[in-house]
Order: sequence, then C-alpha cells, then structure tokens
Amino acid sequence: MRLSMEKIKGFLLDITGVLYESGSDGGKAIEGSVAAVQRLRDNGYAVRFVSNESQTTREGIMNKLKKHGFQMIKEEIFTPCPAVLKIVRERDLRPFLIVHPDVLPDFEGIGTSNPNCVILGDAVGDFTYENLNKAFRILVGQEKPLLYSLGKGKFYRENDHLTLDVGPFTAALEYACGAEATVVGKPNPEFFLTAVRDLNLQPNEVVMVGDDIESDVGGAQACGIKGILVRTGKYRPENEQHLIKPFAVVNNLAAAVDFVCRL
Amino acid sequence: MRLSMEKIKGFLLDITGVLYESGSDGGKAIEGSVAAVQRLRDNGYAVRFVSNESQTTREGIMNKLKKHGFQMIKEEIFTPCPAVLKIVRERDLRPFLIVHPDVLPDFEGIGTSNPNCVILGDAVGDFTYENLNKAFRILVGQEKPLLYSLGKGKFYRENDHLTLDVGPFTAALEYACGAEATVVGKPNPEFFLTAVRDLNLQPNEVVMVGDDIESDVGGAQACGIKGILVRTGKYRPENEQHLIKPFAVVNNLAAAVDFVCRL
Repeated sequence: MRLSMEKIKGFLLDITGVLYESGSDGGKAIEGSVAAVQRLRDNGYAVRFVSNESQTTREGIMNKLKKHGFQMIKEEIFTPCPAVLKIVRERDLRPFLIVHPDVLPDFEGIGTSNPNCVILGDAVGDFTYENLNKAFRILVGQEKPLLYSLGKGKFYRENDHLTLDVGPFTAALEYACGAEATVVGKPNPEFFLTAVRDLNLQPNEVVMVGDDIESDVGGAQACGIKGILVRTGKYRPENEQHLIKPFAVVNNLAAAVDFVCRL
Repeated sequence: MRLSMEKIKGFLLDITGVLYESGSDGGKAIEGSVAAVQRLRDNGYAVRFVSNESQTTREGIMNKLKKHGFQMIKEEIFTPCPAVLKIVRERDLRPFLIVHPDVLPDFEGIGTSNPNCVILGDAVGDFTYENLNKAFRILVGQEKPLLYSLGKGKFYRENDHLTLDVGPFTAALEYACGAEATVVGKPNPEFFLTAVRDLNLQPNEVVMVGDDIESDVGGAQACGIKGILVRTGKYRPENEQHLIKPFAVVNNLAAAVDFVCRL
C-alpha cells in the first residue's frame, strides 16, 4: 500500500461541488477548500482543475474562483469548450450550438451557417423545445449524426436544489436519432489524460477528486487515475453503494488532501 | 399462407401518418385513406384506431378526423390518456403533468398537489427546461421513480418537417434519474391487447397498420398481431433494413387494405 501511495504527485480537482457550491448569487466556497488547494501547492503537488463546466469560459471560472479566494491561472483549468473547439477546427466543422450565452465568445469566428454537427453544452434556459428540434433536424439528416456533448452529467446542485445538466438533453437527442454522442469532457479518458500530460505525470501518479461517482471517479479510474469521492456537491449517500468503488470516500476536499498527505 | 390469412377479421389503425398527416393547419387526409377505412367497414372488418396521440382528447381526434371525411365513433379510438387515467385512479396517484394544454380537460378532478408521480405526454411547447426540472426533482426524491410516458415515439412529421415526440424527453428524465419509465400506449403490449379485446378477437386475427417500425409494427408483433408498415408519415426507407420485419410494407393504408383483402 505505502509503496504505491508514495507515488502520488499530482491532483486533478473537480470545481463545482468540490471547490465551491454554485448558486445564482455566485455560490460559495466549500469550507476548507481554499486552504486545501493552498496546502497542495505548499506541499509541492501539481494541481489542475478538471471541470465539465460549460456555462462559463475558463477566464470566467477563474475570476469567479478568485473572488472566493482560490489562487490559480487560467491555463490550469481544463473544460470541454476548448477541447471541442480543437475538434471543430481540426475537422473544419460548422456547429449548431446549444450552449450557454456566456460561452459564446469562445466560439467567435467559427462558421455556424448550414451546420453539419451539433454541440450541446449546459445551455440552461436555452434548452428549449425549439432548439432541441433544430438540433434533431440537423442530426436526423446525417448518415452518421455528429453530436458533441460537453460532459454528460446528469444533474448538479444549485441554490439548494438539483438541476438537470447537459446529459439528459444529450440522452434525448441520442434517443431521437438512434445515435451516440461523442462526450467531450469527463468521463472521456482523453480529457483526463490531456490534463495528466499537462502535469508531466503518469496516470497512476495522480488523484482525481470529485463529487460525481460516475463522471469523476469512474472516468478517472477507467484510465488509471485514482478517484476520491467527496461528500459535498451532488454527492448522495447511495453513491457509496454504486458499482464504481472510489479509492476513498471523504467528507470534503480538505479531508481528501489530508488523506493523501498522510499516505 | 392462405390458411392463416383467412383468419384476419380486424384492423388496428394508427392515426397520424396513416389516416392523415398532421400540420398546424389541421393537416390533411392521406390520399385514399378515407375510402380505405370505408372499404374495411363495407367488407365486415372490425376497426379500432390505436394512437399514441396525446395532444388532443379522443373527442378532439374524432372531430378532426370527421372534418377530413373519416367516419368513426369516439369509443373506437384508443389513446394513452384514458389508459393512464385508469392507472392514476386505481393507484390513487397525484401526478405532475407535462402534457399538452388541450388534454388537460381529461385530467379534471385528479389531485395534483404534492405530486408523487410524473405523466409525460406530447407537451410540445410545454417541454420547457423549467417543467423538466420540476419533474426531475419529484422523481429523484423517490426510491422507485414513478414516470409514466404516453407512448415513447421518437419523432413525427408535421408541416413537412420532423418534430421531437414525447420519447426523447422521457429518455432525458430516465437518464437523469437512472430509472425506467412505464410506457402507457404503444408499444406496450397491454395497450394493443385492450383494443384487441374490445374487438372480441384474438391477436392473430388482427392486423396493425402503422408508420412507426418500432412502436407500431414491433409493438404489435410482440403480442402476436401482424404488423404492416406504410410508406407514409414518418416512414423512412432505412426502416426496411430494421431488425423488425413487418408482415408487409406497402405504400399507404389503401394498399394495406388491398393487400389484406386479396389474401
């Protein structure tokens, strides 16, 4: 046990539900999380923030977190928007976008007329019947429907209630078209591994801390990263009966850092 | 072949895409369908109309079809709304309704405060982010989420374009809750068999004519009814490569009647 544990050199941290709880008022930091991130840095652990957040640009996320007292630079944040933009540019695609208005700046300069694919993010109020129908009509006309989903989260907690995430709307279009979306973001292994490569580490030297048993813990463990589940954010007690077994289940990020530092 | 065919004594007919094409202007009868239904009656075949229509009450459907020249009585029409009402009354449920405003009269007198189940019909403009979130919050709080879906159609054709049906929205809530909906309507065998019993016939004496390879043809054949696929409505050529193999594929309802009358 000790032998394998001494190798942990880097942390991937989910943001919402781990660093802070989101809310229409900007949310609030989870107790102990600001100090926990600082402690990681002080102890020489490399840190990246790996989030399926698609309501805000990386800059917006960074600014929000700085207000809560977290220290970071934009380049440490990994979100699905830059990842899908890379695909769009490489494949010269013209997407129909169902995304949050706040991330539209990321897509500036991308041609969207006569669309030949659909990108679905956490669009919140833009998850309209009309938009979903438009997306469906593009996809159903394609031999191999090109649907990119920015994460496939089921729901998240906001303002003390659970809210549908992008995943259910992706599932709706998948069912309608009889096709499978390409998930850009967690739990896609390539997304985790991009962050691991950026750390200059191997997957088994890294811990992923998240509140989503499937997307965070399951996704990380599927590519050899150890997954720690925290009892904050969208965590629910039945997650501990899930088929996916985390490396550890702890009360919050501070406890996760404690746990790893003591190994 | 002839032996088994001589037994056909009754027809179950899908409505939208078989009798008429829907549209915001009331739609239009499919060429030959009015005469085809009359021919069935003249030749002594018993007829029932089996539809997943949940935008209109049975009375509304009857009135619309009569305007197009079809003859029928309300009691010949089988739709999911009366079927789900029966369940709600038997189990004393208090549903949260995401249904078309035009079918709300069907639910008069049903208690909906402090809801303990969700009924999802073809709500069209009422498929809002807000309504889906409300439904999700009811379901996610239940140990065994009670979600009733009025049919599970993927899409239908309206005003010359394809439109999302109730199925994708059901799939969204199923994915979000990790639970399976109870489908009331086609392809639920009980729904077909209720109509067959009303005909006083056995399933193998009955033909189902529909434009949906899965819901109409697959559903019927799963309970011993012969399924005929018509090339009208939502039919698409690739349906003929589907794993479900209809008893026959014909151009329209008139051709289906021809086909059976000549057996």
